[in-house]
Amino acid sequence: MHKKLFIPGPVEVREDVLEKMATPMIGHRSKDASALQRGISDKLRLVFNTKEEILLSTSSGSGLMEGAIRSCTAKRAAVFSIGAFGKRWYEMALNNNVPADLYEVEWGEALNPQFVDEVLGTGKYDLITITHNETSTGIMNPVEELAKVIKKYPDVVWCLDTVSSMGGTKIEVDKLGVDICITSSQKAIGLPPGLAICSFSKKAVERAKTVEFRGYYLDLLNLYEFIQKKDYQYPSTPSLSHMFALDYVLDNMLKEGLENRYNRHIEMAEYVRNWARKYFEVFGDENNLSNTVTTIKNTRGISVADLNKKLGERGFQISNGYGKLKEKTFRIAHMAEMTLDDIKELICNINDILGLE
Amino acid sequence: MHKKLFIPGPVEVREDVLEKMATPMIGHRSKDASALQRGISDKLRLVFNTKEEILLSTSSGSGLMEGAIRSCTAKRAAVFSIGAFGKRWYEMALNNNVPADLYEVEWGEALNPQFVDEVLGTGKYDLITITHNETSTGIMNPVEELAKVIKKYPDVVWCLDTVSSMGGTKIEVDKLGVDICITSSQKAIGLPPGLAICSFSKKAVERAKTVEFRGYYLDLLNLYEFIQKKDYQYPSTPSLSHMFALDYVLDNMLKEGLENRYNRHIEMAEYVRNWARKYFEVFGDENNLSNTVTTIKNTRGISVADLNKKLGERGFQISNGYGKLKEKTFRIAHMAEMTLDDIKELICNINDILGLE
Repeated sequence: MHKKLFIPGPVEVREDVLEKMATPMIGHRSKDASALQRGISDKLRLVFNTKEEILLSTSSGSGLMEGAIRSCTAKRAAVFSIGAFGKRWYEMALNNNVPADLYEVEWGEALNPQFVDEVLGTGKYDLITITHNETSTGIMNPVEELAKVIKKYPDVVWCLDTVSSMGGTKIEVDKLGVDICITSSQKAIGLPPGLAICSFSKKAVERAKTVEFRGYYLDLLNLYEFIQKKDYQYPSTPSLSHMFALDYVLDNMLKEGLENRYNRHIEMAEYVRNWARKYFEVFGDENNLSNTVTTIKNTRGISVADLNKKLGERGFQISNGYGKLKEKTFRIAHMAEMTLDDIKELICNINDILGLE
Repeated sequence: MHKKLFIPGPVEVREDVLEKMATPMIGHRSKDASALQRGISDKLRLVFNTKEEILLSTSSGSGLMEGAIRSCTAKRAAVFSIGAFGKRWYEMALNNNVPADLYEVEWGEALNPQFVDEVLGTGKYDLITITHNETSTGIMNPVEELAKVIKKYPDVVWCLDTVSSMGGTKIEVDKLGVDICITSSQKAIGLPPGLAICSFSKKAVERAKTVEFRGYYLDLLNLYEFIQKKDYQYPSTPSLSHMFALDYVLDNMLKEGLENRYNRHIEMAEYVRNWARKYFEVFGDENNLSNTVTTIKNTRGISVADLNKKLGERGFQISNGYGKLKEKTFRIAHMAEMTLDDIKELICNINDILGLE
């Protein structure tokens, strides 16, 4: 039996979207490929709220995260981490011999703008990485507040991981001043995994030109220059199946209306939070909760693994806590094409299994 | 109108295979994902003729090529190039600060084992890269002859690019002594682009352990160690759609019988070559022609672009010559699920357009 996925990626993909994954192939050096990929970038600019270039990479979000920190750190990177995925940037920097320092806050907390100001004030850094929506904790960083601080440092390239938020909450890339905003297909955008997406500002382009060893496949400047020269064709054969499906999904997103879409996510998030507050506790800083995934403190001491097994028998799947939060928390994702009715159906089944209400 | 693809990738994908790309999602940290990916690796071992580990990467073949030369060069790499894709390894090495030398032969020629012997005899190299089947020229290197020479240098890690040959011609990875044999989904395997595959020998594992900066997403040792620890789950969310389709394709391949499949490719190749010899000339070394793609010398001075346009109106697409061979040659791919009848239909249309016979 298929299990409906309420995990923070890969998400449940609508049947009509899946069908687009089965589109027959076209040549990747054809005019049709150029038109398809150019169209996708145009539509993504509306979702990202940016006039900058959009890059598509046949990789996971991690691929572009690595590409960003490696391609655009000339001096030293400040990695701000509020959970597992924030810390991954640091590992990537170290593995690429990119000078970097890690600044961590307690899991469940958001990033304090003043802390970022203090770190950048040292003048040591020319790139910072921030996780917008930390999937491991369910915290969404206050990017507007952070942007005010980061704008004081015009030489700093800002990389923002919106892997689990873009498409589920409004992110105004240009207004915030984000230089490289990264997301991935299998989260709030509602596609299968296999494609990563980022915006790439002119500041980031100029910075990358000063960095000597940027690699090949994940070199953002290589991608950028190639698509300028070759009308949105990519250096290597891209996942055309994802391109077909992404193009379709973006049309649907714009048809739904972005504001409607974001409101739908807020509505689902609030429903899950209210339920969690009634029977458990919401994990983490109440002022900075995610609109796409809720982490619930296991205050009743249930077996999360057991709950998930029983949900599985009914055709649903949620997520256990991530890493050190396993069994201490569990996570319910409410993103992409999920509706409030889907969420209500899930919660109803959880209540039934746990004997709540 | 859909154009049937006779280009050397992406290839025409069968409808039943495309349907598998539309399989509903599963969690990438689930037992189902482990079983799927473990099964794929087991089946791929039969195709690769290897007992070594198989790694799957959500990237193009270029991604794994870069990962291989970067992860496993401790001293210096010797890059042997017989065309555009051979040379790409060199670019990758330079972009990653990996010491490397490029040894090129004229486009259309195969690699001479004695030449390889001389180069390795200098003792300067601990890794070599060879293109098995050069898509830009239609030449297939004599790997059995090359293997005899390379075996004399047990400290050398051998990387072989079989992107456009694996699945279309027999390659005995372990018998040859290839350490990292790389291929890609969208060529002779018959899937859409978006997934790269390689074998990874114990010698390569040990070598990678001595290399300090191997990156993250394309670090072959990271992939290897992760799947050992996590029962064939990957560090980042992989393209599950490709996994479903690959699993299905491998079943079909084994059902057809690998020898039958390779013979089918030989039959198609011979048909195209004989036609080319009659009206044009076959490009390159007659003793080392590819079984998956034929490059034809444009001895009649036709406009290849025009021919392809007219073929397009009839629902077919072939390839112009690659790079500097554009218009001087053209290419017909005969790989994956194509049959002799498909090839005959194409040739019949080319004859008709050009007024041949």
